Amino acid sequence: MKVHYECLSCMITQAQKASELATKDIKKRREAMLNVAQLVGKYYREESIPAIDASLLFLEIYKLLNNDDPFKNYKEVSNSLAKRVVEDLKMTLHIDLKTALKLAIAGNLIDFAVGYDPQKIEGDIISLLNENLYIDHSDELFSALNNASVLLYLTDNCGEIYFDKLFLEKIKKEYPQLEIYIAAKDGAIINDATIEDLKEAGLQEVGKLISTGSRIVGAPLEYANEEFKRIFERADVVIAKGQGNFEVLSELKDDRIFFLLKAKCAPVARELNVPQGSMLCTRL
Amino acid sequence: MKVHYECLSCMITQAQKASELATKDIKKRREAMLNVAQLVGKYYREESIPAIDASLLFLEIYKLLNNDDPFKNYKEVSNSLAKRVVEDLKMTLHIDLKTALKLAIAGNLIDFAVGYDPQKIEGDIISLLNENLYIDHSDELFSALNNASVLLYLTDNCGEIYFDKLFLEKIKKEYPQLEIYIAAKDGAIINDATIEDLKEAGLQEVGKLISTGSRIVGAPLEYANEEFKRIFERADVVIAKGQGNFEVLSELKDDRIFFLLKAKCAPVARELNVPQGSMLCTRL
Repeated sequence: MKVHYECLSCMITQAQKASELATKDIKKRREAMLNVAQLVGKYYREESIPAIDASLLFLEIYKLLNNDDPFKNYKEVSNSLAKRVVEDLKMTLHIDLKTALKLAIAGNLIDFAVGYDPQKIEGDIISLLNENLYIDHSDELFSALNNASVLLYLTDNCGEIYFDKLFLEKIKKEYPQLEIYIAAKDGAIINDATIEDLKEAGLQEVGKLISTGSRIVGAPLEYANEEFKRIFERADVVIAKGQGNFEVLSELKDDRIFFLLKAKCAPVARELNVPQGSMLCTRL
Repeated sequence: MKVHYECLSCMITQAQKASELATKDIKKRREAMLNVAQLVGKYYREESIPAIDASLLFLEIYKLLNNDDPFKNYKEVSNSLAKRVVEDLKMTLHIDLKTALKLAIAGNLIDFAVGYDPQKIEGDIISLLNENLYIDHSDELFSALNNASVLLYLTDNCGEIYFDKLFLEKIKKEYPQLEIYIAAKDGAIINDATIEDLKEAGLQEVGKLISTGSRIVGAPLEYANEEFKRIFERADVVIAKGQGNFEVLSELKDDRIFFLLKAKCAPVARELNVPQGSMLCTRL
């Protein structure tokens, strides 16, 4: 997906958010934003892909701000909140494979929810479970998993990874033949999960953890390491979570990829031709 | 006031808003925003003044969008709504000079209120009247007006001008010796009032209408015409409405100027050292 007209203001707003989280010093924030104004023309061009180009911009800002992980605290809060919510849901719901898939999509909303009451989040998630997926290719996904040897699972945000773990537990049980690889970013970028976050959440219990080889959102192959590229090639099925992975990997037109996401923003919804806010499990 | 760290995202968001209002064509909006990304580094620099530099950026976008007045409809709605609200308030309230001053400040919120129920706006305005001004130099203003021969009144937004008219009627009655000049922009820029808007609202009944000589928000003297500069120099008192006029004219440190505004955004509130949302009548 190439940048839409709304992506510029979103990039700038997120850059501002990063500068606010990185420092309380108003002068440093201003210096960072003065630099953003000079840099942004490089990253918002005709052919820019929002997740990739915004990541490159953010990494420049992190250097300017002298803070390599402005979202550190935000991510910790998301993780502990999601962990608790998933534990509670496991006790109160009967969770089958399809429910776990929907939870993995609904779990994507947790990055909005820092500071919320966990019980309110649980309520929101349960009401999302009652919604239908706007595009539902889950039968195709499950049939593909049935015939597959290798699954590559691309994670998205902190918090959400606890929902991914739940889904992967069900997948592992249902398709025991699968060799499962779970990928996360090679280092901190906005609130995306890193390999360290996956370890902390115990994802190694359900698959082999691998790095995408870069800190760029959306696992672009041109920034990946050799191991990731090899596994991406070997995979029979790829499950790609969230908007960032969609923005980058939709460019490949690769029918092994199933995108599981909530179309949070207008550009992604427009690209997919679905109403904003829709939950989707879609093969392009 | 020089740009604060939040001004970049605000400039971009307003540019996006202008492109949305200017055309329904997604491709044209995208083309405009691609240009904004290349241009913004020129207008968000160390010494930039938000109202001036954002105006210069917007005028470039208007050209790109081939629409010289994207806010035309928005302004018309604001004007007719404000006109009605002021007529109603005149019938229901006893309005003295001080109340009219507060209404002129409260009227600044009307640009948020397009599409709102007029009765809800009236309620909001009446509750604003019950708030104290956070900085209140109105006694100094009235005493200065008492001793003045020439008043220059700098308007701000459409809609709000109907509240300005009410305030100016009271000033004219209270200080009949005053020669009153009322300035507006020389052409369309965001939702600011133009000379045409002032005529439409009948402001010529309470003073002589003059152009600031440019379409730049905030009446910067370096963009003004000779007539405006002459009257600005002759004025004994200047009443400057809204954030834009504050951003530009606060640079002059000129104690003839009284700023009447609601500190809507964090940067203006920070600059004035007041809580965001405060209503002010202040001489610097």
